[in-house]
Amino acid sequence: MTPRKKLEGLVAATVTPMTPDGRINLSVIHQYVDYLVSEQNVKNIFVNGTTGEGLSLSIQERKQLAEEWMCQGKDKLDHVIIHVGALSLLESQELARHAAAIGASGIAVIAPSFFKPTNKDELLGFLQKVASEAPTVPFYYYHIPAMTGVKIRVEELLDGIREQIPTFQGVKFSDTDLLDLAQCINKKEREQFVFLYGVDEQLLSALAIGANGAVGSTYNYLGRKTNLMLQAFAKPDLALARKYQTKAVMTSVSGIPMGPPRLPLVGASEEFIAKAKAKLESIVWPDGD
Amino acid sequence: MTPRKKLEGLVAATVTPMTPDGRINLSVIHQYVDYLVSEQNVKNIFVNGTTGEGLSLSIQERKQLAEEWMCQGKDKLDHVIIHVGALSLLESQELARHAAAIGASGIAVIAPSFFKPTNKDELLGFLQKVASEAPTVPFYYYHIPAMTGVKIRVEELLDGIREQIPTFQGVKFSDTDLLDLAQCINKKEREQFVFLYGVDEQLLSALAIGANGAVGSTYNYLGRKTNLMLQAFAKPDLALARKYQTKAVMTSVSGIPMGPPRLPLVGASEEFIAKAKAKLESIVWPDGD
Amino acid sequence: MTPRKKLEGLVAATVTPMTPDGRINLSVIHQYVDYLVSEQNVKNIFVNGTTGEGLSLSIQERKQLAEEWMCQGKDKLDHVIIHVGALSLLESQELARHAAAIGASGIAVIAPSFFKPTNKDELLGFLQKVASEAPTVPFYYYHIPAMTGVKIRVEELLDGIREQIPTFQGVKFSDTDLLDLAQCINKKEREQFVFLYGVDEQLLSALAIGANGAVGSTYNYLGRKTNLMLQAFAKPDLALARKYQTKAVMTSVSGIPMGPPRLPLVGASEEFIAKAKAKLESIVWPDGD
Amino acid sequence: MTPRKKLEGLVAATVTPMTPDGRINLSVIHQYVDYLVSEQNVKNIFVNGTTGEGLSLSIQERKQLAEEWMCQGKDKLDHVIIHVGALSLLESQELARHAAAIGASGIAVIAPSFFKPTNKDELLGFLQKVASEAPTVPFYYYHIPAMTGVKIRVEELLDGIREQIPTFQGVKFSDTDLLDLAQCINKKEREQFVFLYGVDEQLLSALAIGANGAVGSTYNYLGRKTNLMLQAFAKPDLALARKYQTKAVMTSVSGIPMGPPRLPLVGASEEFIAKAKAKLESIVWPDGD
Repeated sequence: MTPRKKLEGLVAATVTPMTPDGRINLSVIHQYVDYLVSEQNVKNIFVNGTTGEGLSLSIQERKQLAEEWMCQGKDKLDHVIIHVGALSLLESQELARHAAAIGASGIAVIAPSFFKPTNKDELLGFLQKVASEAPTVPFYYYHIPAMTGVKIRVEELLDGIREQIPTFQGVKFSDTDLLDLAQCINKKEREQFVFLYGVDEQLLSALAIGANGAVGSTYNYLGRKTNLMLQAFAKPDLALARKYQTKAVMTSVSGIPMGPPRLPLVGASEEFIAKAKAKLESIVWPDGD
Repeated sequence: MTPRKKLEGLVAATVTPMTPDGRINLSVIHQYVDYLVSEQNVKNIFVNGTTGEGLSLSIQERKQLAEEWMCQGKDKLDHVIIHVGALSLLESQELARHAAAIGASGIAVIAPSFFKPTNKDELLGFLQKVASEAPTVPFYYYHIPAMTGVKIRVEELLDGIREQIPTFQGVKFSDTDLLDLAQCINKKEREQFVFLYGVDEQLLSALAIGANGAVGSTYNYLGRKTNLMLQAFAKPDLALARKYQTKAVMTSVSGIPMGPPRLPLVGASEEFIAKAKAKLESIVWPDGD
Repeated sequence: MTPRKKLEGLVAATVTPMTPDGRINLSVIHQYVDYLVSEQNVKNIFVNGTTGEGLSLSIQERKQLAEEWMCQGKDKLDHVIIHVGALSLLESQELARHAAAIGASGIAVIAPSFFKPTNKDELLGFLQKVASEAPTVPFYYYHIPAMTGVKIRVEELLDGIREQIPTFQGVKFSDTDLLDLAQCINKKEREQFVFLYGVDEQLLSALAIGANGAVGSTYNYLGRKTNLMLQAFAKPDLALARKYQTKAVMTSVSGIPMGPPRLPLVGASEEFIAKAKAKLESIVWPDGD
Repeated sequence: MTPRKKLEGLVAATVTPMTPDGRINLSVIHQYVDYLVSEQNVKNIFVNGTTGEGLSLSIQERKQLAEEWMCQGKDKLDHVIIHVGALSLLESQELARHAAAIGASGIAVIAPSFFKPTNKDELLGFLQKVASEAPTVPFYYYHIPAMTGVKIRVEELLDGIREQIPTFQGVKFSDTDLLDLAQCINKKEREQFVFLYGVDEQLLSALAIGANGAVGSTYNYLGRKTNLMLQAFAKPDLALARKYQTKAVMTSVSGIPMGPPRLPLVGASEEFIAKAKAKLESIVWPDGD
């Protein structure tokens, strides 16, 4: 991995490849990395998150996957963020130490969704206890209230967070409450933080209020197109950016199947690329292909 | 009122002025209109909506208010949209006929929130029965699921709506589901429709995906500033637009009291303007005042 | 109506009969009353509530219905409770005065469901302003959070309620939170209050913790059977009571159509009785008919 | 453990004792068992469930706890049900095999709460894959939608469940939807199943519709009292049963602290018993002590 530069732009939330009999399939990850870099122009990944079904895997599987992504991504990827959240604090801490040991660019933690923290302090306490096990690794909070049921506003959580979590680096913000996101971003002392938006279909709206980039499953197959949207937005050419966003929504809503929990993604990379290509080819994009 | 031009830009959702003993106070509406036009540069209003507590007023009061706003707005305002939704279809129809009779520029209807329509057809059936009572008046659907509990996606509702409601003109979209809004906007046949966003704090995000304007309570006192945001966005100067949005959020979140249901807004216009001014003066805006 | 005795046992929530063209049909109410008394052994009714679509009717219609039920119920019914709740306080007060004027045995008020009261004091304030317009009429709070979205616990609401509403008499409790109901009932000073349960399918569970009776739509056609359940419970013969409850659930879940909002219930009483009879005859009841 | 008799009556959901520094404290379990049997007359336990914070423990901790409860309960307890649910199917299967190996009287599985099953078949598929790893151990479904967000009705789940899960034995039903529970119970073919109610404050209502017993945290300190309630109900003396239920609600609502997640329950059994006794002594019970 190249030495740390600030994370920005697109991050692909990786699917976990499975064998036909339902075991994790490490052998295709090499191919997967090459595909992301060469076909999608995406050089950052988010491993073992929601898309990767991290919480449905065993601790052992999560470690093996993290190691393989780190190994295959070496010298090819810029950032490998390992999601280490778990219902059990002990297990989350174990995964954090493991991620640090294998040199992850960052770790992310989701709020525990069974015994839900009910206020900022409870949530921060949990996050802090995980972050402190990897004291040199940038830490990201993974906010996805629709899945966890934990609706503590991020803006509130971030108040003074660096005092508790010196490694705090940013948020994967997977929610439609853009007021919360805007209030996170628009504070002087937060300029060093990274806000990665996680509702792919609404990325343009998040960019408009200042998001730094995006983490999502659609960047596995829409990375190149979405990079064009980012460029149009940067110009700024909002009309063009809007066209890309619209096409992306059409693609994503119509559904490229990413594989249900633990069901086999047979020959993941091949079938996956085939389906994605067919779908993408059925849409006329602003760049004419 | 000037002859119909397409509604766009800002629409102020009007507060209903009350006397100290809790009756509607028609006498300050004249002043209110002048204030909006001259101080806020806002020439469109939305009457008897949520901000105006329309559903908490009696039918008689709603008619009197509609008449007074129409009368005072004559030759001064561009558009006066009267909200005529009610739990009772009969009463909603009565209000629609009344709005037509007094020459309203448009009528709007909220989904009934007690016996909630559970699918598109039920909702459309209700709206159609109201719209048809005012067959020459532009019709707007007022979408505010957080208040009504009616979560039918607008995108679905709009499919073929002109066949059922020939007067259909647009939507007051008061929800944070910007994917739904984007999908509403990005259809060829909908270019004639107007999409007015109703979550004031997130207007910039809605503009980014193509909203035509906004309806909201904050434009009563942030109209002039928000018009500057619209101009910055049109240039486009997104950084400047974002600054205006941020300041607007600070103003609105910190709260200018608009009066609780049926409690007296004593000397509404004076006290209201005083409070608003004090609040606005406490914030440094991009335009330096 | 016979002079006031304490309300207990079953109360039928009446359907509002409609003509084929969607107007209220007062002419069948005479028949409806006779049917309830002679066929169902039910002598208490709850008029213009949820079953009766009260909130979807105009104020004028609600008054006409209340008058007709009062008139036809004279000398035949024990209690006629008129629901007078409305989104508009003014209209609710008007209905309360009207109910008092025509001699209703009680009035009931539902929480306003658009601008929802968010705490006990707001709700109590609203109820008090209605109750005080009918200062000699027993007052019932109609608790149905699944419809209104107002989830203030009744136990909390009742603390000291007689000081604010001297006419307070009881609650129509239409919720599955039986802990709240149990806590309402089990306080010494509340022995004078009446708790009528409103989730018909779970009446037996409510009786077990001390409910005084029930208000519901199923007692329109299951009144006689449910009276047998009440007798079995009073013995106590819980096994028998449970058999009645089970059969009632089978009947009610499988659905006897009570007419959708404002759609015609053609020849209401005849068709209604026919369907109900057919349904009831298809089930073998403990009493062997 | 005595040879299998059908589970009925009370089951204590055990707290997991912790040391002051936040590790599981196996050493007090011996004492805990004796306390339950001799002081509370409770001879069935539910281990590693919600009360025991099972989902917050590591797999290793869950196994150690299960072993210790089994070991200490030998010859003293009638039923030890081990909760083996987990977000990860692999880990849940591992726990099921372990529970079988140590001779548990039953295993229970909660619905996964992150990737939530959205219909009966998905949920049943998950449960079946766990149950089949312990093919001779009675299987219980643990229904607690308020925690999991999985609201699939149990009545629906149970249709034909024995064909998929031959070891299916019953349900820990922790929800207030008593209609669902009643519909579960009142089917001929389900007489062999056990329905244990899990909302302690409403047990009497569940008994009224036929629940076989109860699982809950309050039976740790209200076991003896609740057994008296069960006896009163069996007589039947409903008035007396209601008095016990009322007192139990007063006790439970006012709160005997059971220890927050992973915070130390210092000298659990002593402090715990002291607090519980003090609380219980402050209430006058029907049996006069």
